[in-house]
Amino acid sequence: MLGGMQDFELRVPRLIDHAAREHGAREIVTHWADGRETRTDWAGIARDARKLAQALERMGVGRGDRVATLAMNHAHHLVAWYGAIGMGGVVHTINPRLFDEQLVYIANHAEDQVLFYDMAFQPIVDRLKSQWTSIRHYVAFDDLGLQGFAALIDREDDDYEWVEGPEREPCMLCYTSGTTGNPKGVLYEHRSTMIHAMAEVAPWVFDLAPSSVVLPVVPLFHAAAWGLPFACALAGAKLVYSAVNDPAVLCRLMNDEKVTHSAGVPTVWLSMFQHIDATGESPRHLKQVTIGGSAAPRAMIDRIMGMGATVKHLWGMTETSPIGTAGNEPPDWASMTRDAQLDRMCKQGSIPFGIELQVIDDDGAVLPRDGKSSGRLQVRGPWVVKRYFGADQDAVDAGGWFDTGDVAVLHPDGTMQITDRSKDVIKSGGEWISSVELENAAVGCAGVAEAAAIGIAHPKWDERPLLLVVRKPGSAVSPDEINAHLRKHVAKWWLPDAIEFVDSLPHTATGKLLKTALRDQFRDYRLPDARLAG
Amino acid sequence: MLGGMQDFELRVPRLIDHAAREHGAREIVTHWADGRETRTDWAGIARDARKLAQALERMGVGRGDRVATLAMNHAHHLVAWYGAIGMGGVVHTINPRLFDEQLVYIANHAEDQVLFYDMAFQPIVDRLKSQWTSIRHYVAFDDLGLQGFAALIDREDDDYEWVEGPEREPCMLCYTSGTTGNPKGVLYEHRSTMIHAMAEVAPWVFDLAPSSVVLPVVPLFHAAAWGLPFACALAGAKLVYSAVNDPAVLCRLMNDEKVTHSAGVPTVWLSMFQHIDATGESPRHLKQVTIGGSAAPRAMIDRIMGMGATVKHLWGMTETSPIGTAGNEPPDWASMTRDAQLDRMCKQGSIPFGIELQVIDDDGAVLPRDGKSSGRLQVRGPWVVKRYFGADQDAVDAGGWFDTGDVAVLHPDGTMQITDRSKDVIKSGGEWISSVELENAAVGCAGVAEAAAIGIAHPKWDERPLLLVVRKPGSAVSPDEINAHLRKHVAKWWLPDAIEFVDSLPHTATGKLLKTALRDQFRDYRLPDARLAG
Repeated sequence: MLGGMQDFELRVPRLIDHAAREHGAREIVTHWADGRETRTDWAGIARDARKLAQALERMGVGRGDRVATLAMNHAHHLVAWYGAIGMGGVVHTINPRLFDEQLVYIANHAEDQVLFYDMAFQPIVDRLKSQWTSIRHYVAFDDLGLQGFAALIDREDDDYEWVEGPEREPCMLCYTSGTTGNPKGVLYEHRSTMIHAMAEVAPWVFDLAPSSVVLPVVPLFHAAAWGLPFACALAGAKLVYSAVNDPAVLCRLMNDEKVTHSAGVPTVWLSMFQHIDATGESPRHLKQVTIGGSAAPRAMIDRIMGMGATVKHLWGMTETSPIGTAGNEPPDWASMTRDAQLDRMCKQGSIPFGIELQVIDDDGAVLPRDGKSSGRLQVRGPWVVKRYFGADQDAVDAGGWFDTGDVAVLHPDGTMQITDRSKDVIKSGGEWISSVELENAAVGCAGVAEAAAIGIAHPKWDERPLLLVVRKPGSAVSPDEINAHLRKHVAKWWLPDAIEFVDSLPHTATGKLLKTALRDQFRDYRLPDARLAG
Repeated sequence: MLGGMQDFELRVPRLIDHAAREHGAREIVTHWADGRETRTDWAGIARDARKLAQALERMGVGRGDRVATLAMNHAHHLVAWYGAIGMGGVVHTINPRLFDEQLVYIANHAEDQVLFYDMAFQPIVDRLKSQWTSIRHYVAFDDLGLQGFAALIDREDDDYEWVEGPEREPCMLCYTSGTTGNPKGVLYEHRSTMIHAMAEVAPWVFDLAPSSVVLPVVPLFHAAAWGLPFACALAGAKLVYSAVNDPAVLCRLMNDEKVTHSAGVPTVWLSMFQHIDATGESPRHLKQVTIGGSAAPRAMIDRIMGMGATVKHLWGMTETSPIGTAGNEPPDWASMTRDAQLDRMCKQGSIPFGIELQVIDDDGAVLPRDGKSSGRLQVRGPWVVKRYFGADQDAVDAGGWFDTGDVAVLHPDGTMQITDRSKDVIKSGGEWISSVELENAAVGCAGVAEAAAIGIAHPKWDERPLLLVVRKPGSAVSPDEINAHLRKHVAKWWLPDAIEFVDSLPHTATGKLLKTALRDQFRDYRLPDARLAG
């Protein structure tokens, strides 16, 4: 032996050990659904997680077994993560907003052994219990005397020793809420989770430190809560959880607990703005707001920046653990105009160490990073999926690239910009029309509440856009008015061949437009003859 | 196969690939010894490193072979690191300040194949060449027409592909400049170096981002320059190197290049203060100053904080890659008094994720983290040595702990405080007297330039302190005056039994007091009878 450095498996329990040892008194605050507020700390989470690990072993849960949760954000949910992972299990977070069919499918596909759930979701449990074939134990997180979570762990002492093992063992399972076919499970490993957590605390992603106070609005069931339960333990940050997403509660928590970092989807901020406008009460300590899940509108970024916080756009997906890119301030930030700053922050961000991105055309040729060439976005890296859970083949190509299903442009300044989903792009005369850009332009028109653009088969151009519009209450905006507005924002050949008004548009469980349903619904739609002739 | 995440070996060349791809235009500035200033960027470093890797292969250097450098900080030296590591070699940085005997020993022990060196060190090369038994190629970094480094790489093209392999392979070799026995080599691995680099960019260590501009005064041959060549590539930070340590040059560079981060030993700042006092010119853009190598005096930390920068105390050693602890601001920093802030920052810092510390007594019992119990400091973690290069046994105990040779206290707030080296502590009547605290108290006395405290054998108390003092020029400070000063700062039983004045004190190659030499010199010293009777 030549000599060398120490062995150290990158296992998740090291995070909770570190947090308990070095930042044991740093608080974990929970605002529960019933309005109560409780406080524990990293030492308390570690203690309870050891007890839960012991309880799970006693229930017959074994190494690699899946332990499911169906719950909002609270300290017990966090304990369930570290407890199940600590005894060698695999945490499976279930999104309660999924359709019944999907809820049945994923719990059975995952072969979940135990389900920890909030009583708020008791109706789901009652409805689906008979169809869930593998779940042997149901435990409510709520305080139910001898039946609930607290009683379960109170029976154990806290001298449990974490299960050791290789770092490539699985620790977590998250299903995609895909728009087509059955959901697919991404099986995170201890190693991938740890490298992802180390990458996340960096200044160019979440920028977390022991002095940070983090309120993740993003649910624990949404792509591993973007890794924050792990990253916050690594940093020793204070965590503030709310089981309800009422902006009045969130705003008060942010001020009472001096929250410095928040993270959530754009709609969280739309509600918060309404709260601020209505009450004049605004979060006062925020230093960084991270927005992901879908693109944040420019006006939203502008307004949050005006509140004195840095706004980080995050792009990623369940398959990327989920960090793919993160917005951050370039070296010349201070000398940029506000407009240039907004231009930068409206893009999906730049590429952190670990992640590689490339954009390819339909023939698989890699496109230049010229800020113009749009193509299919591919990703690879240590926290990117290789093979879906239970799949019989890899989800990556020979070069190790995973196809994201997004259409994107890479800019010379290192930023990435999503322009569409590859299934949603409208292919007209050999060129691509971005359905997303068309929709964004349309919602900028007065009277338009929401819009969806889909491609309709066309004998000459292959596809042409149909724009479906939901009017704002009381609005009577006309197709001509919308077209006049669009003309100012998109190329003339992008203008929709037809505009139809609808009462509502279908969405996925995570709030995204369900274009597959729209394409089904309008499969036999006939575009006006005038354009067909064109 | 259940499914899982992508394979990704943590290999160092990924850093330079990332930096070149995502931050290719971020500059690397060098101020050379001859006063010239040149600029390249991460893309340029990557290109040159590929050429050098090819050149090394052509010279017959093979995988795992050691490639040595004897040089100051500059872009060519950085290229040598990435080039040698990229072709599967092991970079061995040699400290030119070592004694000839050590320089001969370590190059032969490492079996270095190639030596890259600055012409400034040509006298060393000329003097020792005949005793270096394994070096086959000598290449000067300076521009020497057809003979030098530039000519060597200019002959190659830049399409070299990095050598792939397991992440536990070695990439770097650094020798300790120990005060006793032969230097010992610490063999860093790709994996340990990568995890260390990821840990270093975190807000609680170097806090590096793409917008950072880093001037590491710490030499590339000092414990891998504290990992900054790797951490800066990971972050995509701009690097500013100076091959000379003249404070006027450093200060001008800091202002011209808008340096935000600097790192070096305390003496660097003593010279900088003299420069500031003499010229009124002061670094204007510094946000963080990291001080390591030895403890920074309180007044130094205070003055740098007054310049508007965060001061981070770093503790570590070659055996810890070298980050062991890093000073950082606790959650209640803003509400702390300046004195409390200084108290905190005078300690060696808190423990980052990855590192575990414990303090044990002479019987091996683990002492509490009570801020009082002083004992031998032990460390373990993924970037801590397991076995020295070429050693036939591990350097760690059965629990995986490495004994640092330091004496320390762990505080309840999570910080660590070095009180002495275990070999230097003075054992008097079963209790320990910290030689370092005695010395620090003594240099606070007017007229004292430097002081060293060593233990002298004593029939009753085992050991008693002898204080050796170098007076400031023109001073005639007396033993009584020194004792009167010490009385105000240390316990009465810590007062030295004797004070002797000397013209100078011996130091190691890295500027630390050479206590072994002092103990040898004063082995037969007789303490005054008055105290012997006591």
